[in-house]
Amino acid sequence: MKSHLSRSDISRRVLLSAMGVLPTAYALLDATSAPAQTPASGQLSSWNDGPAKQAIFDFVRATTDRSSPHYVVPEERIAVFDQDGTLWVEHPLYTQVVYCLERVPAVVAKKPELKTVEPFKTVLSGNREAMAKLSMPDLEKILVATLTGMTVEEFNAEVKNWMQTARHPRWNRPYTELIYQPMLEALNYLRDNAYKTYIVTGGGQDFVRVYAQKVYGIPPEQVVGTAGATKYGYGKNGEPILIKDPKLLLNDDKAGKPEGIHLMIGRRPHAAFGNSTGDRQMLEYTAAGDGARLKMIVLHDDAQREYAYGPANGLPDTRVGTFTQALYDEAKQKGWTVISMKNDWRRIFAFEE
Amino acid sequence: MKSHLSRSDISRRVLLSAMGVLPTAYALLDATSAPAQTPASGQLSSWNDGPAKQAIFDFVRATTDRSSPHYVVPEERIAVFDQDGTLWVEHPLYTQVVYCLERVPAVVAKKPELKTVEPFKTVLSGNREAMAKLSMPDLEKILVATLTGMTVEEFNAEVKNWMQTARHPRWNRPYTELIYQPMLEALNYLRDNAYKTYIVTGGGQDFVRVYAQKVYGIPPEQVVGTAGATKYGYGKNGEPILIKDPKLLLNDDKAGKPEGIHLMIGRRPHAAFGNSTGDRQMLEYTAAGDGARLKMIVLHDDAQREYAYGPANGLPDTRVGTFTQALYDEAKQKGWTVISMKNDWRRIFAFEE
Repeated sequence: MKSHLSRSDISRRVLLSAMGVLPTAYALLDATSAPAQTPASGQLSSWNDGPAKQAIFDFVRATTDRSSPHYVVPEERIAVFDQDGTLWVEHPLYTQVVYCLERVPAVVAKKPELKTVEPFKTVLSGNREAMAKLSMPDLEKILVATLTGMTVEEFNAEVKNWMQTARHPRWNRPYTELIYQPMLEALNYLRDNAYKTYIVTGGGQDFVRVYAQKVYGIPPEQVVGTAGATKYGYGKNGEPILIKDPKLLLNDDKAGKPEGIHLMIGRRPHAAFGNSTGDRQMLEYTAAGDGARLKMIVLHDDAQREYAYGPANGLPDTRVGTFTQALYDEAKQKGWTVISMKNDWRRIFAFEE
Repeated sequence: MKSHLSRSDISRRVLLSAMGVLPTAYALLDATSAPAQTPASGQLSSWNDGPAKQAIFDFVRATTDRSSPHYVVPEERIAVFDQDGTLWVEHPLYTQVVYCLERVPAVVAKKPELKTVEPFKTVLSGNREAMAKLSMPDLEKILVATLTGMTVEEFNAEVKNWMQTARHPRWNRPYTELIYQPMLEALNYLRDNAYKTYIVTGGGQDFVRVYAQKVYGIPPEQVVGTAGATKYGYGKNGEPILIKDPKLLLNDDKAGKPEGIHLMIGRRPHAAFGNSTGDRQMLEYTAAGDGARLKMIVLHDDAQREYAYGPANGLPDTRVGTFTQALYDEAKQKGWTVISMKNDWRRIFAFEE
């Protein structure tokens, strides 16, 4: 149970910040839409005409039209997407955090001696207020107990099973249905234009890989995330196994995102989609490449259809590490495209119609 | 210049073993060829008919024929290849070791104070005998000085430049011409059958990525190798940069190979090609999957056209970490296919005809 995770390795945000109170008020953003080009038949059909949709079309045209000065050969077309808050709902808790908390009873069932030991005792109590006060070392114990110590196949099976039964409290639907339909269309549109699409997430690489192919059409090797080591060894029958280890290899958040992109992909992306300060360096790194680069950042300003948080309506952000006012100002100043969920997305989820 | 590399992280083999004396005598292996199927037009044309060529054909048929019980859907077809000694010549020195040693004068030119400091002084002397006696910490200093401390773009440019001028001492040709033509054909044949081909090398991930696309048709993101960290920061003009750091993230050798495959690919390969004890665990891990799995291991038994080392002719192996007698026995016992360079390859290099 000894954790090799250090305080600096795992952001407190991962478990705690999402438990805070969220601003639910929101207001309209300034309507700064430029006249949009008519989209190709059915492509990006869940996007409203406006600067965000137009930015995607313009970027694809600039990099795939052979006569364009910014043409990119197909084998070099790389697009990266953050997951939580960019591809699917991240409120009121990151899905993986829900997973870790909900796995605690199963872990305790296997090791009954943990029943009366903190932090497991508190998690078993179901007392959210007490859980929000858990110390960082206690939270690390939960991560280590639920994400490591088993073979990679056992972990995959546990996540797969959980995903089939777990439900989001607001919509009472599987988490894998809470994917943003406009982003699925953006993924498909980029892939149709020979872009290799990657997820680059602060969440667990192994966690996201379990469902990424089915949900996003993204194979395991194109999921880059926070990753721990594995230990190669042998099981009861001498069969080779890989055991998930608490040692952190890649903290794929903030500066860790371009570092992770270099480790796992080995070149600078042409397009990057994010929604928080955790994505700032990835966007900045993408923007610093030559030619045409697409930098898009999702603003959650739609409390009615999803959630509103961050600089929408000028309200201070109550969470750490989300779309802060400073990030909003930087995006505007640098010409990164802010996606207003409220204004730019005609529908948010596939089940809406 | 402080190194975070530990003794256990970097195998002494990497710099030292290749400097040893090599057995040059060899003899015929037992001819155990099974009757071969007539190959498809021109495919694997540099392979002689025999059990090795047949094993590749049989594997591809078993996993791509929809009526086969071992059919594998295209998106799950993964094939991994070791590099040194499997895809190109590794004698008398690993190419990357030559690179590091030959980069020392340029490093010293930038930092003249190193001229009289060990191990740089010894390397500058050109005295091979003295170089072979360098201590492990000294060798680490050479790796750190030549592989880290620059931006990833600077490193890529340095390797690219070096590759254009460096020549192998025996053939007086660029190292990138010393690729085994039969293996290029195997890579192409697997790719033609929807296999995604990866390099999984104990060599440096960033090093191999520089030329892998051009030489092997393998993009950077499909090169898994020994990898150090990078540090995200800002250059003189405020531009975002990634600096190569001495901290080791992945020692992609022996047990590190299946661990690296899990980190970078996220699933078990269906085919694995290697040539040394560094590939043993990768082959074992591949073999342990269900259905049809291709396990192939190159035996260097052709002193005339390339080199002879390992268990050929029953001579003891004078190198650490190559194809030992124990590995040969294990391969035979487990039914892994041994590729005899002498018997199975009609030609070895593209320039031969």
